[in-house]
Formats: sequence, C-alpha cells, structure tokens
Amino acid sequence: MTNSPLQSPIVGVFDSGFGGLTVLRALVARAPQAHYVFIGDTARLPYGSKSRRTIARYAAQSARFLVEEQGADYLVIACNTASALALDDIKQAVPSSVSVLGVIEPGASAARRASKTGDVLVIATDATVQSHAYAAACAAKGLRALEKACPLLVPLVEEGWTGHQVTADVIRIYLDELLAEAGAKGLNPDALVLGCTHYPLIKPLIEAAVPTGMKIIDSAESIADRLVMDLGDGEGASQVPGLAEPQLRFFATDSVEKFERLGSRFLGRPVGHVELVDLGG
Amino acid sequence: MTNSPLQSPIVGVFDSGFGGLTVLRALVARAPQAHYVFIGDTARLPYGSKSRRTIARYAAQSARFLVEEQGADYLVIACNTASALALDDIKQAVPSSVSVLGVIEPGASAARRASKTGDVLVIATDATVQSHAYAAACAAKGLRALEKACPLLVPLVEEGWTGHQVTADVIRIYLDELLAEAGAKGLNPDALVLGCTHYPLIKPLIEAAVPTGMKIIDSAESIADRLVMDLGDGEGASQVPGLAEPQLRFFATDSVEKFERLGSRFLGRPVGHVELVDLGG
Repeated sequence: MTNSPLQSPIVGVFDSGFGGLTVLRALVARAPQAHYVFIGDTARLPYGSKSRRTIARYAAQSARFLVEEQGADYLVIACNTASALALDDIKQAVPSSVSVLGVIEPGASAARRASKTGDVLVIATDATVQSHAYAAACAAKGLRALEKACPLLVPLVEEGWTGHQVTADVIRIYLDELLAEAGAKGLNPDALVLGCTHYPLIKPLIEAAVPTGMKIIDSAESIADRLVMDLGDGEGASQVPGLAEPQLRFFATDSVEKFERLGSRFLGRPVGHVELVDLGG
Repeated sequence: MTNSPLQSPIVGVFDSGFGGLTVLRALVARAPQAHYVFIGDTARLPYGSKSRRTIARYAAQSARFLVEEQGADYLVIACNTASALALDDIKQAVPSSVSVLGVIEPGASAARRASKTGDVLVIATDATVQSHAYAAACAAKGLRALEKACPLLVPLVEEGWTGHQVTADVIRIYLDELLAEAGAKGLNPDALVLGCTHYPLIKPLIEAAVPTGMKIIDSAESIADRLVMDLGDGEGASQVPGLAEPQLRFFATDSVEKFERLGSRFLGRPVGHVELVDLGG
C-alpha cells in the first residue's frame, strides 16, 4: 500500500467474517477509485451470538488496525451486528477525523425511500434483531419495522446452497411466519430489508418468496451509495480516474483458507491472497 | 462447591458451547455420584471454523479454569473439535494427576465393537472432519472410516428444528451423499458415528434416514461409559451412594442467556443459573 491519502482515499472495511465482502463488492462497483483494506475478524466470528460488550471490544480492535496500521480515512462497518451494537464504541476508538459508516442507517434510509405504506420488514441475525437497531433507525424516519431473526440463512449460504430447494423452503418458512405476524399486527409492509451481509447471495430466492410488489432493500448497496456521497464531499474522491483493477487488500484473524475458498463468491471476483493478522485475544 | 475430592470426584466438562451438555447428560445418567462443573466457552464458539493453534489456546484456558479454580480431578473434553485438535495441549496445560478424556477415542472404540464389516461412517463439523481425528482413531483399531462434514446440522438443532421436515431433508441429503461416496469406494459400512455433541438431539431423524441394520454410535454415551470405567478404577467413585439430585455447576464465557434458554434441551433437565466467567482474550 504505497498510496497516500492525497492520491486516493483509503477505505477500511470491517466485518466479523467474510460476509462483508458483499458490501466491498458494492463499494468497488460504485467507487472504484478508492483503495480498500478489508479485515474479517474470522477468529472470533460469529459476532451474532456474543454480548454487546464483547462485540464492542473486538470491533474496536479491528477499527484501530484499519486506521492506525493501514491508514484508513474512512471506515465502513459491514457487519450488521457490530453496526447495531458497537458503532459508538468504534467511533470512540479512532480519531474523529475518520468517517465511520455503519450499515444500519443507510439501510433504514433506503427503506424510507422505498416504502409507500410506511411499514417495512427486516430479516437479520439473532443479535441484530435483539438489538432492535433497525427498528430504532426505521422509527427515527417514521417507519414501522417488524424484525425477524433467520439464523439458518448464514449457514445455508456458507454451505453453498444458495440456489438449493432446502434454502428456498427455509426462506419460505421464515417469510410466512414474518408476514403472518405482520398481518396479525395490522401492518401492511411493502419493503423487506436484508439486514445481513450474507443475504445478497440468496436475493433471487428471497425475491421469489416475497409477495408481488414488495421491494427488497440490500443493505450492501445502501451503504455503498452512502460512501459515494461522502467521498464526493471530501477531497480526492473525484480527482483520480477510475482504475482498471480495484486496489484491494485482505486481512483475516484466522481461517484464511476458508476466507480464500468462499470469499470469491461474496466478492464476485477472486479474493486471492488473504493476510493473517493477530489482534490479540 | 464444598466437597473435597475425598468425598466425591469432581468432573470438569468442557465444550466450546453448550452442545456438550448432551455429554454431561450421559455422564450424570451413568455416574450420578460425581460432582460436575461444566464450562462452555460461548464467547469464542464455534471452534469448528478456527485454526488448531487458536483452538488449543482457548481449550487450555478452559481446562486450567476447571482444574485450578474448580478443583476438577477429571476432565472430559466434550467438544469434538477440541478433542480432535488440542487434546495433547490440554493434557500439557494441567497437572499429570488429572485424567483427561477426549470424545474421539471412546467413539472409535464403540464403533469397533459395533461394526462387523470394519467399515464405519462418521458425521461431524467441518473442523473435526478436516482433522481426520476419527479416521485416525478408527484406523488404529483396524476400522476404515469415511467422514463427512455436515455444517447445517448444528444451526438446525440450535434453531430448535429437531423434528422438522427441513432437518429430515438435510440429513437425508448428507447421508445420501455419504453412502454414495462409501459405495463408490467399495466400502460396506454398518455403523455411523455421531461425531458432534449436537447430533444426539436429532438422533431419531438420523435413525430414520440410515439403511436398515446400521448401528448409530452416540459419542456422548461412549465417553460416559469410559468415564465410569475410570471412576471405578480410582478412589471415591463407589464410596458415595447415588444422590437424588446430581451436583451440577455451570459456567459460560458469554451468552449466558442463550445457554440458559437452550441448554435444558441438551441436558434433559433445567440448567438453571449459569455463571459468567472471563477467561480473557
């Protein structure tokens, strides 16, 4: 990484695993001129089953690595769980000059733009749902949000069953339960937020399972749109022409093999070499 | 815990999560006179996706906690992944006077007794399979073992879908693949080892999916049988009459709520209070 911030902004992307590569994929598609450093805290995933205090400690360590050791000017928290539970802790862990973007608020904003009825559905991991971060972010925009934890979807994606009948069955079961609950509460939802970075890989199955006319909000695309706005306001973003090949660097705290093997599916291009880093703990 | 080792042996049971409660359940059923201290390293689960070095470090910390702070005379490593990858590290982390039992070898022994053809199947997590610890333990007993990772089964059990059609479908898919592979290799398996502590909860579905006559080896029961043999050889085991209520104490490194909520299903009785312990890291 020989580029200075004056040449091109350095965007640090953090996730508990490699699911956040779907966010990086969306970022690269919209802002190919930036340099990207991705870290997956794979030694300590999944964050979804851990306490707020533990998640905050882990996420702050990764954030400091991206800023202090990799020179990141922007931080994108691609992990829904960390965005939901630890965004303030992450902001406090780095200098105030570093912009920190979580994935929750852009998702809620996109839901606000998409929904006509003001009622939206959110599917996510257990910890994200228990935090009610999406419901709170949606409520701040005048939306009523009904959230549902779908813990089987991440392992189904990681098993590679992204087009499998079993996955279609599980999605149908979860969505039927969610729609029934929405009906019982008198809601009339017209948008569904994908509140987990793994879900874009099963978006076609989800699209096939939702009622006609329901809009699907991909949080990865929402946060990428937000970053492009931020880059446009700052220095450097528009000064560098688009590069043929995006500048990407990957770190993981463990399980580099799995990251390299499965990551390409999430990123949409070969991940190549993943560097192992020890954050302690 | 006011009992000294002279009164009643203290058995420390370790798992990365609470799945090992199925092992504790089998232990209590066979040796109700012992005192049990269980620790689930829930802050850092699942071990299945982590490297050998990381797993060894984590498991050694839990082992020392059970011996040094809880006075365990025996250690039962109820975690298949830790048994497969870190049993020697655990033995080195505690005094040589402490007996350390892993779950792999008793499972292989039970398979040896059950199999007439000498060919056995093993289903487990990804890391346990990649370690080939069951295949090695079986080979040492003259068995040919074919292993298969079934990463969806743990999340299905934790979702509570232990009798669900989706779970039956997933089991059928995994076993069909495994039996086809066995056939292609000219094997004639007549026993199936459940190499993960979560699997006893879906044993009825697995029994319904295997060919007629195939024996199912429950590693939890195998390790409990082994502990009873060890206790019988030592002091104290037979000196104390069976207690009406087993003496149990539970620790977790995080996610006490989930442990308390889901643990009872694994233990077969109410778990009650789970104490939070910080092992650092």
